[in-house]
Amino acid sequence: MAAATSAVEERSPEWWSRRAWSLLSAVRARAPLVQCIINLVSMDIAANALLAAGASPAMVHSIREIPDFTPRCDSVYVNVGTLAEDWLPSMRAAASAGRPWVLDPVAAAASGFRMEACLSLLELRPAVVRGNGSEILALADSSAAASSKFKVLRHYCIFLAVQSLGADSSHDSADALEAAKALALTTGAIVAVSGAVDFITDGKQVVGASNGVPMMQKITATGCAVTALIAAFVAVEPSDALVAAACALAIFGLAGEIGMESAKGPASLRMHLIDALYGLDEQTVTSRVNISMRP
Amino acid sequence: MAAATSAVEERSPEWWSRRAWSLLSAVRARAPLVQCIINLVSMDIAANALLAAGASPAMVHSIREIPDFTPRCDSVYVNVGTLAEDWLPSMRAAASAGRPWVLDPVAAAASGFRMEACLSLLELRPAVVRGNGSEILALADSSAAASSKFKVLRHYCIFLAVQSLGADSSHDSADALEAAKALALTTGAIVAVSGAVDFITDGKQVVGASNGVPMMQKITATGCAVTALIAAFVAVEPSDALVAAACALAIFGLAGEIGMESAKGPASLRMHLIDALYGLDEQTVTSRVNISMRP
Amino acid sequence: MAAATSAVEERSPEWWSRRAWSLLSAVRARAPLVQCIINLVSMDIAANALLAAGASPAMVHSIREIPDFTPRCDSVYVNVGTLAEDWLPSMRAAASAGRPWVLDPVAAAASGFRMEACLSLLELRPAVVRGNGSEILALADSSAAASSKFKVLRHYCIFLAVQSLGADSSHDSADALEAAKALALTTGAIVAVSGAVDFITDGKQVVGASNGVPMMQKITATGCAVTALIAAFVAVEPSDALVAAACALAIFGLAGEIGMESAKGPASLRMHLIDALYGLDEQTVTSRVNISMRP
Repeated sequence: MAAATSAVEERSPEWWSRRAWSLLSAVRARAPLVQCIINLVSMDIAANALLAAGASPAMVHSIREIPDFTPRCDSVYVNVGTLAEDWLPSMRAAASAGRPWVLDPVAAAASGFRMEACLSLLELRPAVVRGNGSEILALADSSAAASSKFKVLRHYCIFLAVQSLGADSSHDSADALEAAKALALTTGAIVAVSGAVDFITDGKQVVGASNGVPMMQKITATGCAVTALIAAFVAVEPSDALVAAACALAIFGLAGEIGMESAKGPASLRMHLIDALYGLDEQTVTSRVNISMRP
Repeated sequence: MAAATSAVEERSPEWWSRRAWSLLSAVRARAPLVQCIINLVSMDIAANALLAAGASPAMVHSIREIPDFTPRCDSVYVNVGTLAEDWLPSMRAAASAGRPWVLDPVAAAASGFRMEACLSLLELRPAVVRGNGSEILALADSSAAASSKFKVLRHYCIFLAVQSLGADSSHDSADALEAAKALALTTGAIVAVSGAVDFITDGKQVVGASNGVPMMQKITATGCAVTALIAAFVAVEPSDALVAAACALAIFGLAGEIGMESAKGPASLRMHLIDALYGLDEQTVTSRVNISMRP
Repeated sequence: MAAATSAVEERSPEWWSRRAWSLLSAVRARAPLVQCIINLVSMDIAANALLAAGASPAMVHSIREIPDFTPRCDSVYVNVGTLAEDWLPSMRAAASAGRPWVLDPVAAAASGFRMEACLSLLELRPAVVRGNGSEILALADSSAAASSKFKVLRHYCIFLAVQSLGADSSHDSADALEAAKALALTTGAIVAVSGAVDFITDGKQVVGASNGVPMMQKITATGCAVTALIAAFVAVEPSDALVAAACALAIFGLAGEIGMESAKGPASLRMHLIDALYGLDEQTVTSRVNISMRP
C-alpha cells in the first residue's frame, strides 16, 4: 500500500480520469475472477455490475470450496449484509487465502454480533473497506474500543442491512472523514466513505470522488454493487488500492449519472446504470470522471 | 385492532383514497425501518418496493441479531416462501419482539412442515396475514383443525412457493372470503386475500381493494412485495392494520396499473411498477385508488 | 429416452421449429410445476423466465418439504451454483423422488467438493444435464475417472459460479462435443452444451440449436435460466428429453435475439428477453427457431 500514496499530492483531476479509464480497460481486458461472499439481496446486482464492467463474478461461499477455489481468484469480496453464523467461517477463510480482498461492513452497528464479526474481519487486513458515513463512524469507534475490550455499541443510525448508495448531501461522508482516517491507520486498509462525495483515504492522503446521483440511494444494494466493482479494480491494481477504490467509485457513479439521463425512477435507473457501465467509452470516462485530491 | 373497525361502515371510497395518500405520505416522511425475514427469491423486489415507497428495508435474519436489532425496527415482515428449518427460530423470535408484524404464508399447504410453521407463527399474533385465496383457505382450515390435532392436509392448489399476485378473475379471493373472516376471528389478525379484488377483513367488516392488473401474476414475488408494503404501512399506522393493509394493497395495485401503461411484458412491467410506486402523486392516488366497503 | 432418438436423422429444421412451438404451447397450456433447488443468484431470473414461459416455479429447498412436495411437481431442477453442504441432501432427495429432473453443473470443477457433488447427482439419472463447454469437459473427464477413484481435477477454465450463457465463438461447445457424447453414454442423460451453437446429444445423435446473442453472456444466470426452461419443457415432454432440451434452448435464444433488437446493454437485454419470451407467437417461433441435426 505504501506505493499507493507516493506523490499523491501531484495528481490532477486529469490524471485521475485517465487512471479510471486505464483501470476499467484493464478489467475489460483481463476479466479478473472475483469471489463474492456477499449478502443475499445484492448477489444479482453485484454479479451483473461485475459482468457489465468486464469482470468474472463467482458467488462461492461454502467453506468446503475455499481451499480449492479462492487461491485461483484475483480478488475476494466479503459483505456482511445478511450475515449468518454459518457464513462467517467462509468469510474468514476466503479473506485469509492470500488474495487481495475488500470488505463491505453493511450496517456494522446493527448488532453486537455483526460488529464483532466486522472487527474480526478487519484483523484479516482487507485492502479496502467501503461503507457509508454511519458504518465507518461505528467501525472506527468500535475498532478503537476493541483494543481493550468489546463494549456496548453507541446507537448510530446504521440500520440498513440492504445498503443504498449516495446521499442527498455530503453530510454523512464528510462527518466520517476523521473516523475514516483513524480506521485506515489502525487497520492498514484503504477506507472509502460513500456519500454525495465519496472520500477515500489511507489515513493521510484524502481523495474525493464526486460522481453519482441521489436516486441511487433508492435502489437496493447499489452500495454492495460498487464495492464489488472496487474488488474488480483492486484485482487489476493490487499494489495501489487507493487508486483502485477511487476510480471504481467514480466509474460507478458516472454510470449512475448517465443512467439517470434515461431513468424515470429507481428501477429504470438500475437498468440504465448497468447498461451505461457496460457501454462506457474513453471519451466519456476521461471527460466526466470527477476525482480530486482533498486538502 | 378494535379501533380499526370503528365506523368502518361510513367510510366512502373518497375517504379511502385520501387515507391511502395520507399513509403513503407518512411512509415517505418517516421512512419506517422494516425488518424482513423473507424468502430468497423476493428479497430484491421487496427491498426495492420498500425503498421506492420511502421505507427502509432491513434484511436481517440471524437469530444472533434479533435481540439487538428487532426492537429498533418499526415493523417486521415474515415470509415463509423458501422456508428452511434454521430460519424458523429467527422468524419466531422477530415476531415475538413486540413490534407489529405481518405474515405472508406463501404456499402454506405445500408441506406439513410448512403448514405447521405457519400455524405456529399465527399463534404469535401477526397484525396482518396476506395470502392468495388458496393459502387463506388452507390456513383457515388447518387453523380450525389444529385446535384438536394436526391432520392430513387437503390438497389445495397451493403450490407456488414463489408467489405471484393478482388473478385473471375474482374467483379465488371471493371464494376464500368466508375462510378469511374465520381466520381473522380465530387469530385476531387482519386477513387480506389477494385476487382480482383484494379482500381485507377483521372477521366482521370487509373491505375490497380493486387496483392491479392481471400481468402482475407473471412477475415473481409481487405478492411478497405487496406484503412488504403492508408492513411499511402498518409501521406508520399500527393502531389500524385494516386500513394500513387495504391502502397498501391498493397503492401497489395502482402502481401496477400505471406501470402497465408502459409495459411490453412482465419484466418491463416490474420495472415500470417500481418506478410508478416511487413517483405516485396526490392527484393520481386520490383519483385512482379503488377501495370500498363490502356488504 | 430410447424413443427420443428414433428417426432423428429425418427431422428437418421445419420439424424442429414446429416442435418448439408445440412444446412452448404445451407449457403455456399446462403450466407445469417446476421445483427449483438452485443457486441464490439465479432464483429471480429463473423464476421470472419460468413464469414468462407459462410454467409455475416453486423454489422449495428444505429437506423437510421434499417428501410432501416433490411428488406433486411435474419436474425438478437442480443447480449447484452456490452449492452448500446443507443443500446437497435436499438436491439428492428431490432428484430421487421419481420426477424427471434436470441438472445444471455450474462451475463443476471449481472445487473437489463441487465435482464430487455433481458426480453423485449424476448417479441419480437426470433427464438432461446442461452446461457450458468447460463444465461438460470437466464432468466427462471426472465421470470417467470416478469409475476407479476420484482424482485431482485438471484445471479447466471453469470458474464462473454465476454462469453466463452464449459465447463469442463456437469454440467451447464444439470442443466439448465428444465429451458430451461420452457423458451422455455413461450417464444415460441427454447432455446439452451451451455456446454460440448449443449442442444436444444422447451420445449418438447430435442436434445443434443456433439461436441466441453474445451479449447474453453479460447477464448473470442466463445459463441457469435456460436450464430452468429445459426443466419446464421436460415436464411437458418427459418421454423425449432430447427434443425438450433442444427446443427450450432455441426458444430462450430466440427470446434473446428479439430482446437484443431493443436492448442498449445487458440490463435492458435481460428485461427485453423476458418480455420477448412472454410474447412469443407461432409465426415468430416457426420462422426463427434454428435447430438442425448434425452429422
